[in-house]
Amino acid sequence: MKISKLILLGFGNVGRAFLNIVGEKRELCRNRYGLDLNFHSIVDIKFNSVLKSKGAFVFPGSLDAKEILEIVSLKSPERVNPYWKPEIGLAQILNVEEPGVLIECTPSDGKTGEPGLSHIRRALDGGWNVATANKGALIVDFRGLKELALKNHVHLKISGATAAALPILDVALYSLAGSEILAIEGILNGTTNYILTRMRKGLAYDAALKEAQDKGIAETDPAKDVEGWDTAYKILLITNAVFDRAYSLNDVKVEGITAIPSKLMKEGSEKGRALKLLGKVIREGEKFILEVSLKVLDNSHQLFGVDGTEKGISFLTDTMASVTVTGGKSDPRGAAAALLKDIINIYRSD
Amino acid sequence: MKISKLILLGFGNVGRAFLNIVGEKRELCRNRYGLDLNFHSIVDIKFNSVLKSKGAFVFPGSLDAKEILEIVSLKSPERVNPYWKPEIGLAQILNVEEPGVLIECTPSDGKTGEPGLSHIRRALDGGWNVATANKGALIVDFRGLKELALKNHVHLKISGATAAALPILDVALYSLAGSEILAIEGILNGTTNYILTRMRKGLAYDAALKEAQDKGIAETDPAKDVEGWDTAYKILLITNAVFDRAYSLNDVKVEGITAIPSKLMKEGSEKGRALKLLGKVIREGEKFILEVSLKVLDNSHQLFGVDGTEKGISFLTDTMASVTVTGGKSDPRGAAAALLKDIINIYRSD
Repeated sequence: MKISKLILLGFGNVGRAFLNIVGEKRELCRNRYGLDLNFHSIVDIKFNSVLKSKGAFVFPGSLDAKEILEIVSLKSPERVNPYWKPEIGLAQILNVEEPGVLIECTPSDGKTGEPGLSHIRRALDGGWNVATANKGALIVDFRGLKELALKNHVHLKISGATAAALPILDVALYSLAGSEILAIEGILNGTTNYILTRMRKGLAYDAALKEAQDKGIAETDPAKDVEGWDTAYKILLITNAVFDRAYSLNDVKVEGITAIPSKLMKEGSEKGRALKLLGKVIREGEKFILEVSLKVLDNSHQLFGVDGTEKGISFLTDTMASVTVTGGKSDPRGAAAALLKDIINIYRSD
Repeated sequence: MKISKLILLGFGNVGRAFLNIVGEKRELCRNRYGLDLNFHSIVDIKFNSVLKSKGAFVFPGSLDAKEILEIVSLKSPERVNPYWKPEIGLAQILNVEEPGVLIECTPSDGKTGEPGLSHIRRALDGGWNVATANKGALIVDFRGLKELALKNHVHLKISGATAAALPILDVALYSLAGSEILAIEGILNGTTNYILTRMRKGLAYDAALKEAQDKGIAETDPAKDVEGWDTAYKILLITNAVFDRAYSLNDVKVEGITAIPSKLMKEGSEKGRALKLLGKVIREGEKFILEVSLKVLDNSHQLFGVDGTEKGISFLTDTMASVTVTGGKSDPRGAAAALLKDIINIYRSD
């Protein structure tokens, strides 16, 4: 039985879902993968800024995820919780024999990448593997982090940051290994795809957006989604990870769905056609052209049927033709399942 | 640089395509994966039955795939080819220090699994990894082979045998790791899917079959495809590999497309609907129900748009919702690309 020590940084929706899913799947991981997942500690940004102040929950290995969930959910002051160690900071937490996996789920900041970026750097430097759902840190310095992981002979896994349970990077890096990927096209944002799908049914943009907000699909401030930035983050991350590049957000030409030209809207409403917001990478020799743009697909296109909040991505290759993957839960539970998947694959040997 | 010694058994369409693709991709494998692919030997069933008689092409490591292709393509008697070793059999070939990967591409026999089954057993027992496109051997004794691989701490990779470049097993075993797969549904045979797609356009069965034969999609004797057996082989292999079972062909309920009930044909020709031949696995507790059956899909179904010779498969899971993968070249070059992918993934450490 291999033992994987886990440190969870960030205890928001994804962090909580991760703890839950490990609770559900701990037996399965033991039986199917010979892998024992042991929570070592949880550090929540709510209680302290890891790099500036101190304090963390530190557990004996014998506790299971359900017990831990009860402990950290105690509303009474953390300072009197028996597992709360006020004097311990990230440096001490990382300083153990046989490091395992640090799971980084703190809030994402696309400008500075902090605090995730510093957490991930420290962990990799300390010989820890990292699995993260934190887009911001990866957008700011994926290449630097990847090099740090290679230098320290540890894994940096980022499935949770690209599209939760939709296995984009697994397919690109593992299933298409040995081929040359010539182009990528994806529907990578559920909110915009939901709005466009409803607009095809006749709803105006404002009504479709309101419906999405009422259903909890769109956020109160939907700018990041509807202006195309979430798609841009993802296509940028995918490009840098798949092609080993160091592009930045400035290199992505970004279009949103807030001002759709009426000609496009009309064409996209015709029978057998659909208007979609695509994240795209086109290779021109050594150069990569990254863009987020509206496109009318006809019904022979692989992504034509990807409707509502669903996502999908197509890879065009030289030796394997075109491979498309669609679906995959994209809520916090989907992201948590993707983190667990990445952890299992760090340890697998078959 | 890791060095992978390769033995190729079988030099038909897939074996030749494999040699070609390694020739094209050897530099890429060195640069991207730090992996040097070195052909050690080629044994072709055309020249000898490996287990009964002897003789093989054995190469110095310095030859590249293009040189090897020229050597083995020489029409003049193999016995005078300088690389032809008449006294060497599989046992001697396998008996080298630091074994690599044996690639098994001999013709598939679904009844006995031979000669592939014996080749694979010998290789695994000799400490060789195996990548194979040979369905027959795997249908007859996948579990036995898998156990042998585990016992010898080597890999048994079978992507090439399930649907060439469509990454069915990668997605099920790698991308969905940690989840519970609840059901599987796939369009797994290009020939029947082509015929059904053309019938939806109004062609009669005989005319659609003839067209497929004229285009080289269907074989002169199309029974294996149109009676559903190829789909049955694949869904059986997928079930045994994904769920670690030992079902046999007798456990699969098989329907073909040779006598489609007119009611189904009519329903499948309606607007927004399509008749498909599906390979299916449904779980009922610890029991798995395997079948190949005709089903009318409506246009919200994930596999609705998989037309012509294309293939696709959907996995329903507990934590990641439904994930569908479609496309992937399915000719000998696609199978060869899948073999190369499997070899790269045996050696990867990232």
